[in-house]
Amino acid sequence: MKARVHVMLKNGVLDPQGEAVRHALGAMGFDGVEGVRQGKVIELDLAEGATEAQVTEMCERLLANTVIENYTVEMSA
Amino acid sequence: MKARVHVMLKNGVLDPQGEAVRHALGAMGFDGVEGVRQGKVIELDLAEGATEAQVTEMCERLLANTVIENYTVEMSA
Repeated sequence: MKARVHVMLKNGVLDPQGEAVRHALGAMGFDGVEGVRQGKVIELDLAEGATEAQVTEMCERLLANTVIENYTVEMSA
Repeated sequence: MKARVHVMLKNGVLDPQGEAVRHALGAMGFDGVEGVRQGKVIELDLAEGATEAQVTEMCERLLANTVIENYTVEMSA
């Protein structure tokens, strides 16, 4: 079974990576890019029987810095 | 309008970040984590009228290194 975790900086937290991408896209002639936020996606291959609660615990303890980051968990078969 | 781009290393390309996460989860007592791949997610705020083709061009030219990375684009209103 698989889990996909998205980790994004919270709104209001400065995102220099995203800002660099926005600036670079503008410099390359892509108009109309109003904002860019960059985050992480982590795909986990899990043994059968793993639960969303376990993945949430992984996020709380390791995958996300919950002071400045939000995360979402999606499970799939 | 918004676009979300996922950039993941291609299968077969070594992913040391993912491997480090897998190892750390095992050391923390999370059993049954069989594999971890880590990638990037980029959320773009775009002006009205932006097309998926434009975002694909951004991926090809800047957001992804297509030698070693795959990307997917999702558009939403």
